[in-house]
Amino acid sequence: MSAASASTALGTVVDARAGQAARREHILDAAEACFVRNGFHRTTMQDLAREAAMSPGNFYRYFESKEALILGWAERERGRGALLVESLERQGDRRAAFLGVITQYFTAITREAAVLRLDIWSEATRNPAIAAMTERTEAEAKAWIVDTIAALSTDPACDPAAVYAVLDPLMKGLLVGRALVADFDTPAAVATLRAAIEAGLAGRLPTVEPTR
Amino acid sequence: MSAASASTALGTVVDARAGQAARREHILDAAEACFVRNGFHRTTMQDLAREAAMSPGNFYRYFESKEALILGWAERERGRGALLVESLERQGDRRAAFLGVITQYFTAITREAAVLRLDIWSEATRNPAIAAMTERTEAEAKAWIVDTIAALSTDPACDPAAVYAVLDPLMKGLLVGRALVADFDTPAAVATLRAAIEAGLAGRLPTVEPTR
Repeated sequence: MSAASASTALGTVVDARAGQAARREHILDAAEACFVRNGFHRTTMQDLAREAAMSPGNFYRYFESKEALILGWAERERGRGALLVESLERQGDRRAAFLGVITQYFTAITREAAVLRLDIWSEATRNPAIAAMTERTEAEAKAWIVDTIAALSTDPACDPAAVYAVLDPLMKGLLVGRALVADFDTPAAVATLRAAIEAGLAGRLPTVEPTR
Repeated sequence: MSAASASTALGTVVDARAGQAARREHILDAAEACFVRNGFHRTTMQDLAREAAMSPGNFYRYFESKEALILGWAERERGRGALLVESLERQGDRRAAFLGVITQYFTAITREAAVLRLDIWSEATRNPAIAAMTERTEAEAKAWIVDTIAALSTDPACDPAAVYAVLDPLMKGLLVGRALVADFDTPAAVATLRAAIEAGLAGRLPTVEPTR
């Protein structure tokens, strides 16, 4: 094979891979729209293929089940979250980055995306693969938040794990409210969460010692 | 009709009503067990009739749909909550009653019941009747909590609505954690919630002015 034709062959492989990756992204976007519109339970693989404008046969080559799709979608969300954290932290001010990531996430999330989160939690209580994925995401978020609080706290009274024990349900409950309440007051909810984080960093949040 | 036979007829009507009410209670218990075991979505009317040991025909005379059943169940939960509040408040110490009701509720709730709550929230985002019921329950809980905080607060810095804006997501998030996490640390979560309530009453909870 000449260098030129080898390079062309390589180019074809790279193009095919890029094409596959783009197609995967397209499918995940379509699935998100579909799940959000109809709910996880009411959505069928046929709905998903139709939304992605693909034949069922071709569609199944990318994702073999609704479960695989929701896992792929959640994995993408995790990746995006990690990128957001990284890009904000690279800007230098870790405190601003921390508050920025959390504020941005809860400000930007649509009601539909919050509903999908609720569906995934509900599904996690019955589906081991989704439970494992949810657990991993939770553990990563916890590690990031506890570490960051430890690094940023300005008062020796601040116990990062105990602060997390308040922030964790507060954030989950905020998503429930976003999903549940038609005229949810997002700015007020985000301000409340921000106040709790700042109080936590300053050792002013009422906390209790974790029992284990 | 003689007085004796009138009284017998009345007794029969009363017995029939009591029988019907008892049957309804029995069905709601069976439905709760069934929903909790299989989830709201996976449960069919046939499963529910079987669980209640009734023929489908007879079962439908009491509840015509899963929706009617979950509404009936939620209504019963509301009634029980109101009774608990009343009985504790009658004991005189309103502060102890307030903390007692909330502590008791979150300590006693099983993982299965928390999962059912998650399912109902998820369903409320798509079913108007369940949404209306959820909204009513939320509004009642809010009114009770805000009024009680206003009556009990020991510091002029305590803004009952702003305290509720922290407690509300905290309580919702606690239920999500209870449903989601296999080895959920309920005592620690309840202690955290209790600390937040006590800080709120004392005007020490970081809060923000609601924007509306």
